[in-house]
Amino acid sequence: MPDLPRELIRHALQEDGAQADITTLCTVPAEQTAGASIIARQAGVIAGLHIAAATFRELDPQVYISGPARSLLSAERVALNFLGHLSGIATVTARCVQALEGTKARILDTRKTTPGLRSLEKEAVRLGGGRNHRFNLSDGVLIKDNHIKAAGGIVQAVTLARHLAPHLLKIEVECETLAEVQEALEARADVILLDNMPVEAMRSAVELVRHVAPKVLIEASGSIGTNATKLAAVAATGADFISLGAITHSAPNFDVSLEFA
Amino acid sequence: MPDLPRELIRHALQEDGAQADITTLCTVPAEQTAGASIIARQAGVIAGLHIAAATFRELDPQVYISGPARSLLSAERVALNFLGHLSGIATVTARCVQALEGTKARILDTRKTTPGLRSLEKEAVRLGGGRNHRFNLSDGVLIKDNHIKAAGGIVQAVTLARHLAPHLLKIEVECETLAEVQEALEARADVILLDNMPVEAMRSAVELVRHVAPKVLIEASGSIGTNATKLAAVAATGADFISLGAITHSAPNFDVSLEFA
Amino acid sequence: MPDLPRELIRHALQEDGAQADITTLCTVPAEQTAGASIIARQAGVIAGLHIAAATFRELDPQVYISGPARSLLSAERVALNFLGHLSGIATVTARCVQALEGTKARILDTRKTTPGLRSLEKEAVRLGGGRNHRFNLSDGVLIKDNHIKAAGGIVQAVTLARHLAPHLLKIEVECETLAEVQEALEARADVILLDNMPVEAMRSAVELVRHVAPKVLIEASGSIGTNATKLAAVAATGADFISLGAITHSAPNFDVSLEFA
Amino acid sequence: MPDLPRELIRHALQEDGAQADITTLCTVPAEQTAGASIIARQAGVIAGLHIAAATFRELDPQVYISGPARSLLSAERVALNFLGHLSGIATVTARCVQALEGTKARILDTRKTTPGLRSLEKEAVRLGGGRNHRFNLSDGVLIKDNHIKAAGGIVQAVTLARHLAPHLLKIEVECETLAEVQEALEARADVILLDNMPVEAMRSAVELVRHVAPKVLIEASGSIGTNATKLAAVAATGADFISLGAITHSAPNFDVSLEFA
Amino acid sequence: MPDLPRELIRHALQEDGAQADITTLCTVPAEQTAGASIIARQAGVIAGLHIAAATFRELDPQVYISGPARSLLSAERVALNFLGHLSGIATVTARCVQALEGTKARILDTRKTTPGLRSLEKEAVRLGGGRNHRFNLSDGVLIKDNHIKAAGGIVQAVTLARHLAPHLLKIEVECETLAEVQEALEARADVILLDNMPVEAMRSAVELVRHVAPKVLIEASGSIGTNATKLAAVAATGADFISLGAITHSAPNFDVSLEFA
Amino acid sequence: MPDLPRELIRHALQEDGAQADITTLCTVPAEQTAGASIIARQAGVIAGLHIAAATFRELDPQVYISGPARSLLSAERVALNFLGHLSGIATVTARCVQALEGTKARILDTRKTTPGLRSLEKEAVRLGGGRNHRFNLSDGVLIKDNHIKAAGGIVQAVTLARHLAPHLLKIEVECETLAEVQEALEARADVILLDNMPVEAMRSAVELVRHVAPKVLIEASGSIGTNATKLAAVAATGADFISLGAITHSAPNFDVSLEFA
Repeated sequence: MPDLPRELIRHALQEDGAQADITTLCTVPAEQTAGASIIARQAGVIAGLHIAAATFRELDPQVYISGPARSLLSAERVALNFLGHLSGIATVTARCVQALEGTKARILDTRKTTPGLRSLEKEAVRLGGGRNHRFNLSDGVLIKDNHIKAAGGIVQAVTLARHLAPHLLKIEVECETLAEVQEALEARADVILLDNMPVEAMRSAVELVRHVAPKVLIEASGSIGTNATKLAAVAATGADFISLGAITHSAPNFDVSLEFA
Repeated sequence: MPDLPRELIRHALQEDGAQADITTLCTVPAEQTAGASIIARQAGVIAGLHIAAATFRELDPQVYISGPARSLLSAERVALNFLGHLSGIATVTARCVQALEGTKARILDTRKTTPGLRSLEKEAVRLGGGRNHRFNLSDGVLIKDNHIKAAGGIVQAVTLARHLAPHLLKIEVECETLAEVQEALEARADVILLDNMPVEAMRSAVELVRHVAPKVLIEASGSIGTNATKLAAVAATGADFISLGAITHSAPNFDVSLEFA
Repeated sequence: MPDLPRELIRHALQEDGAQADITTLCTVPAEQTAGASIIARQAGVIAGLHIAAATFRELDPQVYISGPARSLLSAERVALNFLGHLSGIATVTARCVQALEGTKARILDTRKTTPGLRSLEKEAVRLGGGRNHRFNLSDGVLIKDNHIKAAGGIVQAVTLARHLAPHLLKIEVECETLAEVQEALEARADVILLDNMPVEAMRSAVELVRHVAPKVLIEASGSIGTNATKLAAVAATGADFISLGAITHSAPNFDVSLEFA
Repeated sequence: MPDLPRELIRHALQEDGAQADITTLCTVPAEQTAGASIIARQAGVIAGLHIAAATFRELDPQVYISGPARSLLSAERVALNFLGHLSGIATVTARCVQALEGTKARILDTRKTTPGLRSLEKEAVRLGGGRNHRFNLSDGVLIKDNHIKAAGGIVQAVTLARHLAPHLLKIEVECETLAEVQEALEARADVILLDNMPVEAMRSAVELVRHVAPKVLIEASGSIGTNATKLAAVAATGADFISLGAITHSAPNFDVSLEFA
Repeated sequence: MPDLPRELIRHALQEDGAQADITTLCTVPAEQTAGASIIARQAGVIAGLHIAAATFRELDPQVYISGPARSLLSAERVALNFLGHLSGIATVTARCVQALEGTKARILDTRKTTPGLRSLEKEAVRLGGGRNHRFNLSDGVLIKDNHIKAAGGIVQAVTLARHLAPHLLKIEVECETLAEVQEALEARADVILLDNMPVEAMRSAVELVRHVAPKVLIEASGSIGTNATKLAAVAATGADFISLGAITHSAPNFDVSLEFA
Repeated sequence: MPDLPRELIRHALQEDGAQADITTLCTVPAEQTAGASIIARQAGVIAGLHIAAATFRELDPQVYISGPARSLLSAERVALNFLGHLSGIATVTARCVQALEGTKARILDTRKTTPGLRSLEKEAVRLGGGRNHRFNLSDGVLIKDNHIKAAGGIVQAVTLARHLAPHLLKIEVECETLAEVQEALEARADVILLDNMPVEAMRSAVELVRHVAPKVLIEASGSIGTNATKLAAVAATGADFISLGAITHSAPNFDVSLEFA
C-alpha cells in the first residue's frame, strides 16, 4: 500500500524553485543525461529512500536512478533534505533501541514532530526499530494534569472518558507521584504514564502497578533523552515503554550525498 | 507586512487531529476558559512566536493569550512544536554569530532546510543574527562541480550564466582548490565559494582573491559545523561569509512549554 | 472549539453556482435586505445549524440571520441541503435511541457514511443521542474475516495486532459463530463484534462472553436496521452496543425550509 | 470524456484513514494479493462503478480487479460507500421512471443533492433513466416567489430576466395558483413550474397552458414523492416533467458488498 | 453578494513574491505608513477596483486606502496588473457599445478569455456596457460545424439537443450560409449565429429569419473586430447581438498607476 | 525538465465547464474519434504548444494529436486561449527584437504580466527572443522612488540593501534625472535604470555611466512601447537593455485555430 505524500514533495520542490534552477538551466544542456548514486557518509539506518525517489520522479517522471542531468541536479537538494532528516531520526532511534537490548522495554515516539512531516517521521522511527505512540489527538485518550484539573480529579476524568470516548480507545493517565498512580489504578486506567519521575520513584511505581493490576501497561516519559546509560536505567525499572521526544525533534541530520556518474 | 503560512498551520493542526482531541472533549467543559504563559526552560533566542499565536487563532479565533480551555489544550502541541523547532534554530545561530564577534565574517544559512518550513527557518536564522543565502534555486547563480563539468570548464560556465541568467543575479563559483579559485577569478565570478578546504588553504585562497580582485566576495562552506573554535579559525582567514547547514538541519529542539493559569 | 468544514461549504456553494445566481441577480435589487426563519416541517432533531449559518456567512460575511436578500436567496439551497441531510440523520438516530430506553445498550454509528461528510454525519449521530464508533481505519483495530484468513486464524491475528498496533488501541474481533467467539476470547480480544447473528445465537454468545470474560465489551451488528421492535430484541440479548449503517446511509431527508420575512 | 472527481475520492480515502489502516497493516502480509467481486444483494440499477474502480486505483495504481490484498481491504469501505449511495439513487429513479411508462412525462432531479456529490448524483439519475434539471444557479432562470416579490410581480420579473440574463437561458416561473399561471403566460415565460398544487388544480393549469401557449413546457413539483400511484396521477395531468427531490436526498442505500477470492 | 476570487489574488501575490519583497524590506522601515491614490493616465472605464483593493487587503488586512508603506509597495504591482488588464477590457467594450448607439444591437463577449480570469473579464465587459454570452460550455447549447457533422445534419443535431439537454437551455446554431440558416429555422433553433458572413449576406440572413420566425434571436460573429465603422455596418443589418473576442483577448492595457502621498 | 502548470490548466478547463459540454455530449457519439491540426492564421512565433497539448491530455489522457472527438471539441477553446495569448506575446516580442538588430541592446520583459500566467508569459518572451527581468520581488533589488524617499536618499537605500539583501543579488537603482544617475554611481549601484527619460537625456546618462563606471549595466524603461523606430532610437543611446511592459500586457491575440480532420 503506497504512502503518497505528493503534496509535501511538490511543495518542497516549489519552495526550492526547482523548476527555475537558473544555474542548471544556464550551464547544463537539456539533452545531457546522468546517473546518480546515494552515498551515506556515516553509519546508520537510511530512511526516506522512497520519498527521495518520488522527489526526482515528481520533478520529472523520466528520472529514477538515471535521467536528464538537469532534473537530477534541480531536485537533488530537496531529495537530500528528506533523506538526511529522516535517516537522522531512524539512526538515533536505532541507537536508543540498541541501548534497551536484553530488556522488555520498547522505544516509543511522541507527538513532538516537525509540523507537516509527522507520518514520514513516524515511519522513520519504525525503520529504526521504534514503535509509534498516538498519531494524533483522536486515536487515543491520554489524560494529563490540565484534564484532571478540569474534570475534578483522576477518577472523574477516567469515568468521563469511558462514557464518552469511542469504545476502541484505551485510557492512559499521566502521573507524577505515587499517590497519582494509586488514584489512576483505582480509576481503572488501562495505561499509566510515569512523567518526569526520578528512576527510584519510577521503580516503586512500577512495583505498585504490577502488584495491583498486572495487565496495566506502563510508559516512562519526560526529558529522558537518548543517553544509553540513562535509557538502560529507565528500562531496568520494568516499564513497558519509554517515549522520547528527542528522537524526532532533536535528531541530528544524517550525512548523505549524491554522486553523479 | 504579515507572513501568513496559514496552510502549514492548518495542515499541522489537521495532522495532529486538533479538532478531534478526544481527551479534551471528554474531560474539559466547553464553557471553561483559561490563560497560558509560554515558559522557556533554557536560555536562547525565541523564534516562531507569531506562528504559535497564529496556531491558536487558527483553531479558534477567540483565542489569543487566553480563551476557551479546550482550544488552548488542543492546539498546544502544534504551537510548541513550531516554537521549539524555530527557537532551536535561532538559538544555535546566535551562538555561532557570537563566536564570530570581532571579525567581519557573517553567518549564512543554506538550502539544507526542513521540507515545507524553509521560510520560517530562514526567518529564525535572521532572528538569531544570521543572514540568509539563496531562498531557492531561482534567486542566485551558484555554479558547482557538476555545472562546471557540463559546461566544459569554469570560464565557459560563468560566460553562459552571464548571457542567460537575469541581469540582477550575481554569479558565484564553488571552488575546492587554489587552481579553481584562479580560474574563477579569470572568469570574473562575482562571488567565490571555498568548499571543504582546510583552514590553511582557505587562508591562501582569500589572499589570492583579495590581491587579484578586491571586490569579489568570499564564502567559506563545507561541514564546518557549529563549534566556536572552528568558526573563529575560519573567520580569521578573512572570508566574508561562513555558511552552515547545521544551524537549520541539526539544531536541537529548544525546551519550551505552556503553563496554564 | 469550532469545527470548521469551510472547504466543504465553499465547494458546495461553488457546485451550486451561488455566486452566479442569474435569477436572483436579474430580479432582486442589490440593496434589498431580508430576514429568514428556519421552519421544521416535521418533528425531529435538528442538526447542522452551525453549518447552515456558516454557509450564509461564507457567501457573504454580512449575513447571519438577516442580510442582503440576494445572498440569502443564493445560499438558501446549499444551507437547506446540509440541514435536511444532517437533521435526517439526527432524527432517525434519536428514534433508534428511544427504542433502547430501559436497556443498557447504546447505538453506534459505522464507517458507512457519505464520502466527504463523515465528521458532520458523526456529529449528527451524537446530537441524536448515538455514540461514535471508529472515525477511520487508524483509530481502532477491528479484525474481520479477511484479516483472520490472512493472518492464519483469530489468535494469530490478535497477537499480531497486540505487538504492532499502537498501545492505546483496543482490539475488536468480528465473529459470526459461537466457535469464533470462543476463539476470540482465547485470543484475549478486548471487544467482540457479533456479526449477522440471529437473535437467539446472539443471546448465547453474550452469555458465553459474560461468563468467561466479564470485562469484554460486546457489539451487535449486521443489517439490523432501524425497526424499533427489532432493536429492542437485540438490546435484550445484553449486548453493550448496536451499530447501525442505516442511520447514516439511509436516513430520509428531514423536511425543513426557509421563510423570508 | 472522462469525469475525474479525484479530489473527492482522495478526500474520502483520507477521511477514512485508508493509508493508515492499522488492522490490515498488522494482519495482512504486504506481498499477499487478492481478487474481489462486487455483489449486488438486491435488484436495481448499479451506479458509481467507475468511481469505485477509481477509488481502488487512487489508493494503489496497481489495483483494478485484483491486486495487493492490503490495498483492496483498505479502500473497500470508501468504494462501497460510493457504490451504495449512487446505486441507491439510480435504483429509486428507475422505479419512478417505470411508474410513468406509457405517459409522456419525464422524471427530473432537483438541486436537493448531497453537498459535494452533485455531479455524481446527477449522473446516477441519468443512469436510472431520469433527466437532469439545472446543474446550478447559473445555468437556468427559475423565478420563485421571493424573486417575484422583489421584482414587483411576475411580468416585471420575467422582463428583467429577459433583458439581463444570458440570451441562451430559458425563463421558468414557479406558480402556485391558476392566477399566477395566467400571469406567467402573459409575461411570456418559456416554462411554467406548478408547485405544490393538488392534482385537480394541476390538470386545470395544464389545460390552460396548452390552450394559450402550446409551446410552453410544464414542470410539476413540490413534495410529490416516489409513490408510483401518485406519480401516475401527476403524469396523467399532461405535465411534461415531474421533478423529485426524494430521488437524491432520500434514496435508501443500495445493498452491495465486496467478496474477496 | 460578494465575488471572492481570493485564490487568484493569493496566487498572483505569491507569483510576484510579494511576501519577500527584498527591496522594500531592506529600505522601508516597518513602522512607516503611507496613503495611495489611483491615477488613471487615460480616459476610459475603470474595472477591477474591488480586486485591487482586495489585493492590498490580502497581503495585509490593515491596508485599505492607507496603511503600512511596506505592504502598499509590495502589493502595488499585482494590484495594478489587475486594474490595467480589467480596465483595458471595460474601456474597449465601452467604445464598441458607443459605436452601436441608436441601433438595437448589443455587444456580447465570448469564451475567448484569459485562462483563469474569465469571471473577472466578463464582469469588466458588463462594466463597459456589454452583455455576457455563455459563461462556459454547460450553460447554453451552441451547435457548431463539427457538432453538425457528428450528428449528421442541423436538424438531427437540434433534435438531439432538444431531447437530451436540460430543458432550461435554448439552442443556438452556427450558420455560414443562407442555406444553413434555412435549415436551422426548419430545425426550430431558438437562436441563429451568423458566422464570418459578409455584411451583405448577413443582411439577407436577418431578413429571412425575421420573415420566417420573428421570435428567433440573431447573433453576428467572426473576426468583426472593434472598428466603429465596421460595428455600425454590422448593427445596421438588424442583428440582435454582435459578439467580439477582441474585447477580451486583445484589449490593450489601461494606463493606470499608484501615487503615494 | 518539465514545467507543469497543471493547476492552471485544470482551473481553466473547469472555468470553461469542459467536463459538462452539453452541446458536444448531446450531438457527438462517445465512440467517435477525430484528429486535429493547429492552423496559424497569421505570421509570427508560436508559443504555448506544450500547454495546449497538456490541456487536451488533462481533459483526456487518451488525446494527443488525435483521440475521442468529444474530448477534442470540449478542450478546444481553452487550448486555443492559451495558444493565442502566448503566441501573441512571442510574436510582438520577436518584432521588437528585430527592431534592435545591429545594436547590442536586448529586450527585457517586466513584472507587468497577467495575474496567474507569469511563468508562461515569460517563457513566451524567451521564445520571441527576449530576455527575462526579475521573476518576482525576491530575486533582485530594484530601488525605486518610494524606496529612496523611505531610506532618506539613494546612497542610504543602496547601503541598506548591500547590508541586508542576499549577497547574490545585484542592486539596481531607478533614476529619472542625470543628478540621480550621478548619485546612484556614487552609491556604487550595480545597475542603473533610466526611467521615462527623453532620448537625448538618456544618451547623456549613458555617456556619464560609461565614463565613470564602465562595468555598470544600463536599462532603459518607461512607456517606450513597441514602435520599431522608437526602439531603434533608444537602442542607439547605448543602453544594454530596454524593458517593455507592452510585450506582455498589451500583446494582441495571435490568430490561431484548430481544424478537425
